[in-house]
Amino acid sequence: MTLILSNDDIDQLLTMADYVDILEDAYGELAAGRGVVRPRSDSLAPTAMPGAVYGLKSADGIAPKFGAAAVRINSDIITYPEVGGVPRRVKVPAAPNKRWVGLVLLFSTENGEPLAIFPDGAMQRMRVGATSGLGAKFLAREDARTAAIIGSGFQAGAQLMALAAVRDIKQVRCFSPNPENRESFCREWGERLQIDMTPVATTEEAVQGADVVACSTSSLGHVFFEGMLEPGMHVSSIKLPEIDPTAVNRADLVYIHNLEDRTPTNETADLPDMKKITGADGAVKKAVGFDTLPTVFDLIAGRAKGRTSADQMTCFLNNTGTGYQFAACGAVAYRKAKEMGLGHELPTDWFTEDVHP
Amino acid sequence: MTLILSNDDIDQLLTMADYVDILEDAYGELAAGRGVVRPRSDSLAPTAMPGAVYGLKSADGIAPKFGAAAVRINSDIITYPEVGGVPRRVKVPAAPNKRWVGLVLLFSTENGEPLAIFPDGAMQRMRVGATSGLGAKFLAREDARTAAIIGSGFQAGAQLMALAAVRDIKQVRCFSPNPENRESFCREWGERLQIDMTPVATTEEAVQGADVVACSTSSLGHVFFEGMLEPGMHVSSIKLPEIDPTAVNRADLVYIHNLEDRTPTNETADLPDMKKITGADGAVKKAVGFDTLPTVFDLIAGRAKGRTSADQMTCFLNNTGTGYQFAACGAVAYRKAKEMGLGHELPTDWFTEDVHP
Repeated sequence: MTLILSNDDIDQLLTMADYVDILEDAYGELAAGRGVVRPRSDSLAPTAMPGAVYGLKSADGIAPKFGAAAVRINSDIITYPEVGGVPRRVKVPAAPNKRWVGLVLLFSTENGEPLAIFPDGAMQRMRVGATSGLGAKFLAREDARTAAIIGSGFQAGAQLMALAAVRDIKQVRCFSPNPENRESFCREWGERLQIDMTPVATTEEAVQGADVVACSTSSLGHVFFEGMLEPGMHVSSIKLPEIDPTAVNRADLVYIHNLEDRTPTNETADLPDMKKITGADGAVKKAVGFDTLPTVFDLIAGRAKGRTSADQMTCFLNNTGTGYQFAACGAVAYRKAKEMGLGHELPTDWFTEDVHP
Repeated sequence: MTLILSNDDIDQLLTMADYVDILEDAYGELAAGRGVVRPRSDSLAPTAMPGAVYGLKSADGIAPKFGAAAVRINSDIITYPEVGGVPRRVKVPAAPNKRWVGLVLLFSTENGEPLAIFPDGAMQRMRVGATSGLGAKFLAREDARTAAIIGSGFQAGAQLMALAAVRDIKQVRCFSPNPENRESFCREWGERLQIDMTPVATTEEAVQGADVVACSTSSLGHVFFEGMLEPGMHVSSIKLPEIDPTAVNRADLVYIHNLEDRTPTNETADLPDMKKITGADGAVKKAVGFDTLPTVFDLIAGRAKGRTSADQMTCFLNNTGTGYQFAACGAVAYRKAKEMGLGHELPTDWFTEDVHP
């Protein structure tokens, strides 16, 4: 039988700590050459809605240790509105019942069969969080207690869960442009995680004195700037542009999530070249060198060092997801779903065939 | 509702003539820049079966004129046995009930919704045939009456249908190494198409005097050689290695299916470099120049000429499929399936989500 799982099912199956553990294990495999990442592709085409484009994204991955392969697909109607003077990339819920379209197809590497099909949203949020969590695990100070969350949307909660999973976070300040959003975010998550949470009116207020800063926005502009960096601070993004390149450049240690982030995507290609950093005097300063930055795989495999002193300013640029993450996490979630009897079972014959294609 | 269609459903929806027409229309769009092809990716990883590998293939395409996008996925257990001294790439039906795994996911470019999911086999066969048919339409002699089919497997019938759809084929000779296979192939297809069909014991017998030759094998070695080419003959492949590069080089007109075929794939990378053609005296002769060969799109868009004289020897190298073909053909098939009430309907909500991924 092929399992059809929902986001609610997926949310019941794995905790944030599970995701961090699975990704650390899976990335160790990948660092050792025992896994495949087929980088995400973005295809754009016209659609009928004015000012919108149709986007088809796909990413594949194979995680042999987990016995699974995954293809993640997003079929989006995309708009680019300005919010507070900053352009955002906003997906419109244009599918029936005002819904978005993201799917993960999970296959067995042992016999090829389609094991499960599920929407990508719940796992996407957790795998983005867990990836930032891995970055913080290796780069943030062991004694980090105060966190700043920039953003209050879908991803912000997962960033918070992830920081709380790898460090003993006691106090959190959240900035988001809309006061209601930041207030309700702090109410909800303060209760869920039993952490002291304070909504604040500016990024500066949130960031000042924080041990870890998690940018968690859909902004296509910078939200964290050079002057906000403090000794000992760890800062992470979930979209490449969030952290101003001058801030990235000033950090003592900079890691990117994966090799894909070394090349520009549709989302970042139009942004100022991150490598050419111009100082106040107009001179080009030391380049960030995205093409040579170490990845989180290097950290996990011990090929590169994490934080070595309390004063270091560290930066983790989490940006592009991989199908590989969905293969590893999907495999564990699938096995748990079978144990728990979750999901709709459909005949596997519907998704296989008796002809050699 | 999202439609789950079977190969039997797909086979009822479109004729070979429909496929040829759809592809000609769709390729005209693509040639004009109104479509997207995300080239196929092949990811390989270990699997438990001795001597086998696990392969995950995916290819995306968007056909705005047809209002659809498609992702084609293959999840294969692959072996490389030798048959008659020639290596073959054979997919093992390892999924439950001894089945293969190939899927097409069809999406709307208007609202992003998943319109249909269906196995790829039936459409794969027809789109491969129709592509060769398009090549023959532009390159074979108008008065072609005699065809040779090399191979008697899953693809051979579609090659025959396609030739019969674009030319008034009266007589066919089929060679396949196994006598039983070639005999039953001729019986079955002679009856279906009301064409005089003769099984023959060698490729030479099949090819001699044929106006069109369709190679239709899963061979990783050459099956058509330079000496077999005759004035006025049109020859096509469905796998790049089938036609010996020296034969390709001798043809007056050579077209490839699409731009993808200009770069080697997993299947062709280990073969002798098609560009370096060595003569009997050891000297490197004129290169085939795969990187500059015109495509079928150029033919359809009128940017390149088809056959201009009855004596020309023409060659069409059909090799790699695209998700774009499945988007265009899938869109037409989907609309017909809705009209005819075919397939299983599942709630679209199962394949969409209420969170912004």
